[in-house]
Amino acid sequence: MKKNAFYAQSGGVTAVINATAGAVIETARRHRDRIGRVYAGRNGILGALEEDLIDVGRERAASLRALAHTPGGAFGSARYKLKGLEENRAEYERLIEVFEAHNIGYFFYNGGNDSMDTAHKVSQLSSRLGHPITCIGIPKTVDNDLPLTDNCPGFGSVAKYVAVSTLEAAMDVRSMSRTSTKVFILEVMGRHAGWIAAAGGLAGDGSAGQPPQIILFPEVAFDERAFLERVERTVARDDWCVIVASEGARYADGRFLADAGTRDAFGHVQLGGVGSMLADLVRRELGLKYHYAIADYLQRSARHIASQVDVDQARAVGRAAVELAVAGENAVMPTIERTSDRPYRWRIGRAPLARVANREKTLPKRFITRDGFGITAAARRYLQPLIRGEAYPPYRDGLPRYVTLENRAVPKRLG
Amino acid sequence: MKKNAFYAQSGGVTAVINATAGAVIETARRHRDRIGRVYAGRNGILGALEEDLIDVGRERAASLRALAHTPGGAFGSARYKLKGLEENRAEYERLIEVFEAHNIGYFFYNGGNDSMDTAHKVSQLSSRLGHPITCIGIPKTVDNDLPLTDNCPGFGSVAKYVAVSTLEAAMDVRSMSRTSTKVFILEVMGRHAGWIAAAGGLAGDGSAGQPPQIILFPEVAFDERAFLERVERTVARDDWCVIVASEGARYADGRFLADAGTRDAFGHVQLGGVGSMLADLVRRELGLKYHYAIADYLQRSARHIASQVDVDQARAVGRAAVELAVAGENAVMPTIERTSDRPYRWRIGRAPLARVANREKTLPKRFITRDGFGITAAARRYLQPLIRGEAYPPYRDGLPRYVTLENRAVPKRLG
Repeated sequence: MKKNAFYAQSGGVTAVINATAGAVIETARRHRDRIGRVYAGRNGILGALEEDLIDVGRERAASLRALAHTPGGAFGSARYKLKGLEENRAEYERLIEVFEAHNIGYFFYNGGNDSMDTAHKVSQLSSRLGHPITCIGIPKTVDNDLPLTDNCPGFGSVAKYVAVSTLEAAMDVRSMSRTSTKVFILEVMGRHAGWIAAAGGLAGDGSAGQPPQIILFPEVAFDERAFLERVERTVARDDWCVIVASEGARYADGRFLADAGTRDAFGHVQLGGVGSMLADLVRRELGLKYHYAIADYLQRSARHIASQVDVDQARAVGRAAVELAVAGENAVMPTIERTSDRPYRWRIGRAPLARVANREKTLPKRFITRDGFGITAAARRYLQPLIRGEAYPPYRDGLPRYVTLENRAVPKRLG
Repeated sequence: MKKNAFYAQSGGVTAVINATAGAVIETARRHRDRIGRVYAGRNGILGALEEDLIDVGRERAASLRALAHTPGGAFGSARYKLKGLEENRAEYERLIEVFEAHNIGYFFYNGGNDSMDTAHKVSQLSSRLGHPITCIGIPKTVDNDLPLTDNCPGFGSVAKYVAVSTLEAAMDVRSMSRTSTKVFILEVMGRHAGWIAAAGGLAGDGSAGQPPQIILFPEVAFDERAFLERVERTVARDDWCVIVASEGARYADGRFLADAGTRDAFGHVQLGGVGSMLADLVRRELGLKYHYAIADYLQRSARHIASQVDVDQARAVGRAAVELAVAGENAVMPTIERTSDRPYRWRIGRAPLARVANREKTLPKRFITRDGFGITAAARRYLQPLIRGEAYPPYRDGLPRYVTLENRAVPKRLG
């Protein structure tokens, strides 16, 4: 009997997660012999737990096509981590109960480390309960911190946004430094991994006078004295200094430079304020005029400056997820395998969820210059292809034509 | 005898001020019979005061063409306001001395209110001293606060950036509000005028559930209770709330919401921190999860998302400035005159500098909804055409191909 498919978005959304969603839906439609209806979770996995499913088949075809160029999470995403099987077996059983009630045999979970863990557990438990569900993880994270894949869809576009923004802001600061701002700080995302901050390094070629003159990575312990010396020396040489700072920048003892003290649903510290903290330091210790920008959600939703390579890969992992499922694979995640830097070439591979779940890939040492403030040639070779190509959305009257889906509910079958 | 021309950029740079510069240079080259060499001031007016002139004729033709798509100030700009004639006559005399030494008969000053004042005074004094210099002001300001012109080059592109960013961030927040951020604040520029904040209103159509649900203008006294009530009501209705806040938002007594306490060279209060101030208020009083972005320089340097209308107008005022000069006009500024909203039509007019100088045009009352938190249909009719068209720069390897000029110095003739 044909089984239905369930797709859910998880965690922080990206400029291209909907491109993945669109590809999953299209590919499932091409396998009507194997896959029945396609449902999506309203607000991610919560939609499954609450039996609040969206009937994707009731959307207009043009709307589904427009997912390829629409940022955010079209069905709603959630920061909701299922606990361990022992701690909260009831929640997994509820998931499986809802899947059974709607004849769902395929679970596509589009997220980061936590989501791969959930998908893996659902696969295991459903087998044990005698109603095996094919669980495929689909990589998505701007943080680029998933292991076993060369890079993660969502990262290339945020990398392009950060590189372009760093370049543009630097041209601004450089042209006004004589009488105005000397130090500009761009605060970017990346709680535990410096991939996004590293992408700012693409704004220049790393030589003297090229922006950004300083990058602060979570992977390098913040040394206040070395930092201030570097800022002072840069301003003496170039008259201005552009700094890209990761929100995850921290001291040697592990404390974040700016810890707002609050925690999100996953128990992660909620960060913010590195930009203002550094600006204050520069003003207080060096007396230099500063400005700072905090890109925050703008960086991960900036579909208007998405990378074509990123969009292509986001769609490719979506397609591959469905192809793996119909080929009988289970508890795997399609990966991106790089086969060549120049010319850049990649293909889709796969990794078992058990090996992906709950592991983080931080920036390797060989990607960071010895002084800790820049990126190496190896980092450039890795990062550069990921920001290539401009995947512009269509516009009308000056604004991108992003789609909002109707998201009609599937009638409930359970209490 | 043929006179040389001097062009200088002043104040905060924009995504399109170089497009104006390029048009000035091209148009001057088409009037070789009247205009000799074209010089630019290194770091704006300081280049004249210090006799640090740039020989624009020594740049490659391709570089000059690339000015049309390059943000920042290609010759350097300055925040440097000449004082009143009585207070600092020596500075004006020095300007005129340098102009005479280099046979400069045309002064093109590309800036905001302060610069129009300077250009006006140079025109007056040079006549009185018997060496009349043709002084043409060229409008430029992201703040859109110059009088007598329908809008200012630089504004349309920042307006487009803010509208697109607000839309994109709203799609992000909306898709995650169930378990994550409820309130998102985007802090934008606009010290005394709410034009940029108003542009954020274009992200939605103003109806319920459309972003931004709240805009804070400098023109509307901030009422903390009304603001918090509106946030609370919005979150109850939509589950999320996007706020666009002008850096110039202030209380009824005139105090800015966030006054960093420092002042720039023009004596203006240096602002920053409205975003974090509001976020803290929302957290403290309503207990809602928030995020905030500070666009800062990113918004005014974002040439990658420039408005085509803005680029066209930036070039048009540059061309017109030179045409006015060779036609014998003096102490005037080319303006943009709107002749029709739908279809949008505009033409170049002109205004005497005496009437432009030191006046600010704030957002009219009829552009702000009665509750003070949104923009009216009249505002939309005004703003919408200004963000039309995507004037994408060329790219190479994923980054815009912005030009850096050689900026070779003209040999000094004075001590």
